[in-house]
Amino acid sequence: MLEAEQQWWKQNGVAISETIDRAGTPWVRMFDRHGKRVDEILYPREYLTILKRGYRSGVVWRALEEKSLLSTYLLMYTISFYDPGICCPYTVSLGTAVPLAKYGREELQSRFLPQLLRKDDSVWQGATWMTEIAGGSDLGAGVKTVARSNDDSWLLTGDKYFTSNAGAELAVAAARPHGAAPGVRGLALFLVPRYRRDGSLNYFIRRLKDKIATRSVPTGEVELRDSEGYLLGSADSGIYLILEVLNLSRVANSVVSVALAQRAMADALSYAECRMAFGRRIIDHPLLQHQFESRLQGLRSAFALAWESVRLLNEVWMYRPPYSERYHLFRLVAHLAKYWTAEFAVDTAKWAMEVHGGLGVLAEYGVERWLREAMILAIWEGTAHRQVLDALEVMERKQAHKMLFELLAEAAPSDELRQMESTVQNHLSLPTNEKEARAESLIRQLAIFTANKLSLTYPG
Amino acid sequence: MLEAEQQWWKQNGVAISETIDRAGTPWVRMFDRHGKRVDEILYPREYLTILKRGYRSGVVWRALEEKSLLSTYLLMYTISFYDPGICCPYTVSLGTAVPLAKYGREELQSRFLPQLLRKDDSVWQGATWMTEIAGGSDLGAGVKTVARSNDDSWLLTGDKYFTSNAGAELAVAAARPHGAAPGVRGLALFLVPRYRRDGSLNYFIRRLKDKIATRSVPTGEVELRDSEGYLLGSADSGIYLILEVLNLSRVANSVVSVALAQRAMADALSYAECRMAFGRRIIDHPLLQHQFESRLQGLRSAFALAWESVRLLNEVWMYRPPYSERYHLFRLVAHLAKYWTAEFAVDTAKWAMEVHGGLGVLAEYGVERWLREAMILAIWEGTAHRQVLDALEVMERKQAHKMLFELLAEAAPSDELRQMESTVQNHLSLPTNEKEARAESLIRQLAIFTANKLSLTYPG
Amino acid sequence: MLEAEQQWWKQNGVAISETIDRAGTPWVRMFDRHGKRVDEILYPREYLTILKRGYRSGVVWRALEEKSLLSTYLLMYTISFYDPGICCPYTVSLGTAVPLAKYGREELQSRFLPQLLRKDDSVWQGATWMTEIAGGSDLGAGVKTVARSNDDSWLLTGDKYFTSNAGAELAVAAARPHGAAPGVRGLALFLVPRYRRDGSLNYFIRRLKDKIATRSVPTGEVELRDSEGYLLGSADSGIYLILEVLNLSRVANSVVSVALAQRAMADALSYAECRMAFGRRIIDHPLLQHQFESRLQGLRSAFALAWESVRLLNEVWMYRPPYSERYHLFRLVAHLAKYWTAEFAVDTAKWAMEVHGGLGVLAEYGVERWLREAMILAIWEGTAHRQVLDALEVMERKQAHKMLFELLAEAAPSDELRQMESTVQNHLSLPTNEKEARAESLIRQLAIFTANKLSLTYPG
Amino acid sequence: MLEAEQQWWKQNGVAISETIDRAGTPWVRMFDRHGKRVDEILYPREYLTILKRGYRSGVVWRALEEKSLLSTYLLMYTISFYDPGICCPYTVSLGTAVPLAKYGREELQSRFLPQLLRKDDSVWQGATWMTEIAGGSDLGAGVKTVARSNDDSWLLTGDKYFTSNAGAELAVAAARPHGAAPGVRGLALFLVPRYRRDGSLNYFIRRLKDKIATRSVPTGEVELRDSEGYLLGSADSGIYLILEVLNLSRVANSVVSVALAQRAMADALSYAECRMAFGRRIIDHPLLQHQFESRLQGLRSAFALAWESVRLLNEVWMYRPPYSERYHLFRLVAHLAKYWTAEFAVDTAKWAMEVHGGLGVLAEYGVERWLREAMILAIWEGTAHRQVLDALEVMERKQAHKMLFELLAEAAPSDELRQMESTVQNHLSLPTNEKEARAESLIRQLAIFTANKLSLTYPG
Repeated sequence: MLEAEQQWWKQNGVAISETIDRAGTPWVRMFDRHGKRVDEILYPREYLTILKRGYRSGVVWRALEEKSLLSTYLLMYTISFYDPGICCPYTVSLGTAVPLAKYGREELQSRFLPQLLRKDDSVWQGATWMTEIAGGSDLGAGVKTVARSNDDSWLLTGDKYFTSNAGAELAVAAARPHGAAPGVRGLALFLVPRYRRDGSLNYFIRRLKDKIATRSVPTGEVELRDSEGYLLGSADSGIYLILEVLNLSRVANSVVSVALAQRAMADALSYAECRMAFGRRIIDHPLLQHQFESRLQGLRSAFALAWESVRLLNEVWMYRPPYSERYHLFRLVAHLAKYWTAEFAVDTAKWAMEVHGGLGVLAEYGVERWLREAMILAIWEGTAHRQVLDALEVMERKQAHKMLFELLAEAAPSDELRQMESTVQNHLSLPTNEKEARAESLIRQLAIFTANKLSLTYPG
Repeated sequence: MLEAEQQWWKQNGVAISETIDRAGTPWVRMFDRHGKRVDEILYPREYLTILKRGYRSGVVWRALEEKSLLSTYLLMYTISFYDPGICCPYTVSLGTAVPLAKYGREELQSRFLPQLLRKDDSVWQGATWMTEIAGGSDLGAGVKTVARSNDDSWLLTGDKYFTSNAGAELAVAAARPHGAAPGVRGLALFLVPRYRRDGSLNYFIRRLKDKIATRSVPTGEVELRDSEGYLLGSADSGIYLILEVLNLSRVANSVVSVALAQRAMADALSYAECRMAFGRRIIDHPLLQHQFESRLQGLRSAFALAWESVRLLNEVWMYRPPYSERYHLFRLVAHLAKYWTAEFAVDTAKWAMEVHGGLGVLAEYGVERWLREAMILAIWEGTAHRQVLDALEVMERKQAHKMLFELLAEAAPSDELRQMESTVQNHLSLPTNEKEARAESLIRQLAIFTANKLSLTYPG
Repeated sequence: MLEAEQQWWKQNGVAISETIDRAGTPWVRMFDRHGKRVDEILYPREYLTILKRGYRSGVVWRALEEKSLLSTYLLMYTISFYDPGICCPYTVSLGTAVPLAKYGREELQSRFLPQLLRKDDSVWQGATWMTEIAGGSDLGAGVKTVARSNDDSWLLTGDKYFTSNAGAELAVAAARPHGAAPGVRGLALFLVPRYRRDGSLNYFIRRLKDKIATRSVPTGEVELRDSEGYLLGSADSGIYLILEVLNLSRVANSVVSVALAQRAMADALSYAECRMAFGRRIIDHPLLQHQFESRLQGLRSAFALAWESVRLLNEVWMYRPPYSERYHLFRLVAHLAKYWTAEFAVDTAKWAMEVHGGLGVLAEYGVERWLREAMILAIWEGTAHRQVLDALEVMERKQAHKMLFELLAEAAPSDELRQMESTVQNHLSLPTNEKEARAESLIRQLAIFTANKLSLTYPG
Repeated sequence: MLEAEQQWWKQNGVAISETIDRAGTPWVRMFDRHGKRVDEILYPREYLTILKRGYRSGVVWRALEEKSLLSTYLLMYTISFYDPGICCPYTVSLGTAVPLAKYGREELQSRFLPQLLRKDDSVWQGATWMTEIAGGSDLGAGVKTVARSNDDSWLLTGDKYFTSNAGAELAVAAARPHGAAPGVRGLALFLVPRYRRDGSLNYFIRRLKDKIATRSVPTGEVELRDSEGYLLGSADSGIYLILEVLNLSRVANSVVSVALAQRAMADALSYAECRMAFGRRIIDHPLLQHQFESRLQGLRSAFALAWESVRLLNEVWMYRPPYSERYHLFRLVAHLAKYWTAEFAVDTAKWAMEVHGGLGVLAEYGVERWLREAMILAIWEGTAHRQVLDALEVMERKQAHKMLFELLAEAAPSDELRQMESTVQNHLSLPTNEKEARAESLIRQLAIFTANKLSLTYPG
């Protein structure tokens, strides 16, 4: 499966992906020629060629059919090497199908799930719409969208500010049922189809964002106006469902980050093997060779960390609250992985540009694209700040680091483990302000430590 | 002077600069409507408003009139806060005027120098054209342009691949006199005007590069075809003149890098002071506050390092080969400064994007621009690799680190100095390959050490 | 006044205008960095330099201060030669100021009029928003915006689909008071400021249109949502006010069309005077020379027709319903002028491209722009179809052709007049369907006849 | 064959074609990452999907295999309805294959012809490079490219200014053998492959033109620098070969113009059938209905004229100089067809925009594209001026009108014919200057007359 995927991408996908990046942000055609509101998204035609291929290959349907996320994330890893952005629609489609399959009433499942799992080009896409204008981290304060009960469904009204895959046939959206508690506890998760039962548009795309990368993905602003929605799970457990959706995308972000770093290194290597300076191929200069080798080790570690987050998610993704300890271990590893793989991707993309010298800053040669794409990965699904603070919290409140050290016990010498453990323990006993203020270097150290140790247990 | 500059930029320049970045790469109009080759560069009209203002303010003329580079670099520092790219034309104009004033025959000086030093909008611009397709670091192998003697002038033929400020009225270009030695020793530096004596074009602009940043600056590919040139200095000392030109631009690159980092921080701060999350302004969250404070310290150090390179250059810029020890000290500091300030600028721009969260990756808000501009700074005038290896060389061959430690003696405690010195000394005694392979971490350590110590002697 | 205008445009405006056309459609920044809805329009900075200059020169204030439209339209004629698009904001600003001055309650006048008539850069702009998604010709059916009475003001809700000068500080908008009659008789005209009394946005700009020309002008879609409005005139006479506003812009469209044709001819001439083929300048080839000469005659006629519509409008612009015969004569001439000058402009722009040969289809040389601009003129303010049918109607219902022939009596030989008159009379007596079906050739003949005859009475 | 073509275009081609138009002009990548000059053209990936399909369907190979041009031009007619630009590469490929097959030495034919006639995606493309900077009409003065004999081949040096299908594997180029006569008599036609025998580039693409339409086609400027070329025919008969190539493209231009007019009408009709105004579909308004019907008649006439030029070309395309009378008849019809079909296409595209009202000037709806494409058709292969004068010349010098009237005798009443004939005859007896000066209205009248009469003999 992966082999075929790679072949296709080398021969076709790469050129299409470059076209799409160069073409810039897609348009919305709000009205058709006859004045009917349609909110049709116009992108380079071949985007569909790329996009649909991944769905057919099983980036979503395999997860639910195989009852395992491994094929899904392996496919994402393979595809992201060629186009990191395209995994965004796949991830949000997965993030729609999974809560529907896990928490949806039977009637909802039979109505919507088959559309998301089709194996041909008629497959529906999903989308996950949480963020509003007040911001994405603090959902409790940020979500102003209100849902009012209406017979067997709900009517949602509000504005979603960062809606990846705007135009999807089905979305999950965070909203607060009218009269529910303030803060995160009052949030619920709803299924929102593109069309109402009467066939008219169920939500409006106000506009698409002009992003520096993932240009194929229509990220928009969506207006919900008495939009038909269907509750998933219970009205007071929405925050758990939201965070479970986020788990899927954080892990995807980690996997894509590693693939992107690998791509940037591959491009740098192929350049360095041909470019001459001072009578030698530049790859033969000791400094560059040394950088390449140590970065390769970094890549292996980052891969191990990302894949461990996949492995653990695959264990816990069907758990429900109240969650087991294993779930909290997953959360810690997922935060470390999201944080560190993105840092590594950005740094590697920067380095790959430098290896290309002056060509690195020219649009013509495309290597600058990896830095743009990497910055998206560093920011989406929670910036470094967010991962650092959340990792801190799951250690403090759930003692997740203890489970982590058990996990690493097989690979790490016990003295190193003990030393790392005491560093963590000391940090956790700092006064609150200082604990937060200095958290980044702790989490960085812990992420690298974990990645390095895990990499020893992974095949090269 | 600087105050007025800042006022103007806040009220006018900022909006113009954004327009220009958004408008993308300028065009070349190769032929006029009547079929005459003109190689006219078409950019947004207001580019001239920005550009000429700096020349009038004295970014070039002050250097030669005041016989000091301080005003020039202070102006660059002030202007780069608002538009880092615009300092590129200023730097290359300076890099044309200085060797002309220092090495040009009297007749050349009287013919050309007054044009470069005009204080009104009729001022001529300069340009410095060294790099060819084979690459910029290894000039000895890379420069294929040949100069043939022709009465009192020379005729140059070759292709320059990265020509900043293409379209300038006057350029300095590296070329090899016909029959001269191979390698860097055979290079000479020539003055090349835009128009021949008979009024026709003296060089052709093949095309402009589509760069990710400094979009106002027309960086092109130039074809020299029996182009009239005038030798500066002697035919066998060109490499010294070339490196002296590079000194001016490396120091400029450092100053601009610091200004860019300061701008990115200012934008991040103004955002963090208004944005709310979890009931507080995000600047009041301990982690962000801590990051901001330590980055402010980093900015102070980077500024001290950059400005020390200005101070030393101002001492040595009129020296001629064979150079004094002081010149070699300058070279070491300039390499450290070019390397470290660019690293700091990139990292700070990345951080500023993250502070903006999702807005950071939108073209609409412009904060992503600083990362693009910073990557140009990291690559131009020699990437990190180049600075690291050149710093190593000037320590090995000229013992420049010893002078550096003397310079730092007043600010640094002697035990720290001694420890740093022995780290350097140990490194220098490694076998060649290993010495180069591991050089980056040494140079990084030395740059930060130097920057921190120097910052103690600078006013806050 | 006009002399100075021309000088400035030649030296500055032309280059700015080219920049703006090339930069494409402006953006809307909907939210500021802090999440506040602002609907700020981002265009190339120098657009303001052009724009404000015309206001200062008096394109609006002169009309009301001099109690004559002549200076206004002369200025428009002069400016359009350099940039036809810029007259759109001027026209809609005039179309806001005039009904306010003519029909606004004293309190409204004192509150708003001085802002529109300022002579410095703080001048407010106006806008005229009639068209909705269902179309612009059939306002009776097309306007769905509803106004509800609210104390001394009204609250308007609806979507305007073609809103030139979106972002203006003040607009006039067509709306139907709640409960008013259907069709055009139930429409009223309201003044709508950009900001509500409490300082928040009074209307929203959904997006800007990506037009083929007049790219400097932000033409958008505007959402009125309980927007504060102030009634102009009485609630049941809105359609008259709307048509009076349209009179101003139709006449402007005619004047601009003639200026554009003149510009296209000037460009063609300057090219033809230099370009050689078959041993001669191409202007010296008999065919091209003949075309140029007869087109020059066409230009004189078109100018006479356009200017006659100015002259008549200047006579009747302060008339109120029920209108005099003179007003109906104006209407007929205005329809003929709008129709014919736009046809002439399109045809001339096409011809000018052809004179340039292959260069004519290159973006680089800009001559293709005149065709794009001309097509806007042919379509806005009513296409040819609309002008033809409206001209027919004013002849049928008001016998306006009789007054026209009286007007022409001084210039046209009586037999020609009689023949033209009988052609018109015969046409008017056709059965309805046929009368409409064949109307275009009649109106074309009448327009050309009128233009040619009027041109005899105008100085060359 | 044509049925399948249409199906594919409706389902796939239309969306691809829109993507390509929106993406704008393609790029040239002059150097690969390793500094090797490659002049690779970068266009949206799916361009190849469209492009290669037409070659496979037989737009070139059928002409030579079937020894008839009918399939070729039928295919072009079918494809141009969906994308008028794509027929440009087909036409120039045909214009390369035909002279090679007709005039090439056997060795050249066996080496190159099979590549142009392949039926799969490895097919080579051709190109026809005549025009230089001094202009395209006056080839005698305009062609400065010089060919020097070199063993069995020639070396060409010069700059071609309008090179459609730059990047083609094989081109035919006009050049003057060193020492040949001045003027058109000294021209020869050469075959120029993309790569030299040693595998390096045989010509350089200086840049691509930014055209208003046919954006998929890379039209560039080509530098021939001692480029290997192979003479076609004899060195002193080049002008005949050049004109024969032009015959192929002029006829193609006519066929494409008709298809474009048909497309614009189809779009206008589908709009007018849905759009409502004043209570009716706008197509039901008498004026619009009348315009549509008479334009449909115009389309039929234009088609008949264009297809007659195909039919005649198909008769004479293998003729060699000295030409028969039939050849001169073809020339007259081809000039009338090129002239009139392009005029009709431009006028119809303008009208289709007007039918769309305000939507007509928006990039979003794409109808404005037909006017841009039509202007290319009006200018390429000789503007109206050129066709008019050439038609005049072939009547004067070859009495071609007499043959035309014979051709029309079957369809036209003899009194109408006689009247038309005497109009022509009177015009031909005017003094030279006047004859040329007033030629356009004569040729227009003759073209419309011919088209109308021919249309009577064509099936509806």
